[in-house]
Amino acid sequence: MVEIEARKEAASRSARLNAVFAALADPTRRAIIERLSRGEARVTEVAEPFHMSLNAVSKHIRVLEASGVIERHRKGRDHILSINTRSLDEVDGWIGRTRHYWEERLDAMEHLLRELKKDPKSGPKDRKHGSR
Amino acid sequence: MVEIEARKEAASRSARLNAVFAALADPTRRAIIERLSRGEARVTEVAEPFHMSLNAVSKHIRVLEASGVIERHRKGRDHILSINTRSLDEVDGWIGRTRHYWEERLDAMEHLLRELKKDPKSGPKDRKHGSR
Repeated sequence: MVEIEARKEAASRSARLNAVFAALADPTRRAIIERLSRGEARVTEVAEPFHMSLNAVSKHIRVLEASGVIERHRKGRDHILSINTRSLDEVDGWIGRTRHYWEERLDAMEHLLRELKKDPKSGPKDRKHGSR
Repeated sequence: MVEIEARKEAASRSARLNAVFAALADPTRRAIIERLSRGEARVTEVAEPFHMSLNAVSKHIRVLEASGVIERHRKGRDHILSINTRSLDEVDGWIGRTRHYWEERLDAMEHLLRELKKDPKSGPKDRKHGSR
């Protein structure tokens, strides 16, 4: 049972990552997020700087809402948009984990290169006593 | 001239971000990156764990190559794949900048909430002397 739950959780996390990455793959949608990262705003305020119809911007906003990157709440007659930081945390987490692996790998390679430079004749295999 | 160059650079950075985010919006492609983040590998090694044809995996690999996330070099008869860390740095940079804004915003809101809790009767506007 625990395993099934864990798999379900992994599957829905993966689905969320798909949606967030796809949402971020568009310059207008990234510009909307950049705008909202400076503070929540009305839909009309968000749409204003773009050279496109309110309808076109609204479509991008709906993609962002569906991905969970932004949220909408009503304040009287206005629709207010804001960023949902948790969704971007998840993306950041994925990149961070991947980066962690490759940075360790790069560190190991750098270390090896330094060792080889110190003593070009001996590779890491036939080295008897290491000198860090 | 400097402005034109800066605009060209911004446009190509934006195009790269589009391609990288689109590349990351697929679970198979993210799994390939996770595999390569543990070290470079042959195409056949990368394809092995997936329940799909080599041809299907190759298509995903080509999308990742086109986005600049991974690179290919030949070693004798083998095609070796590795991660190009700079492309993911760019994605990380974009998220980092966006995060920076909203974290400042969240900090400011938290500060305001703390102030209001201390003295629920006075809002920030009619406060005479602040007490941090």
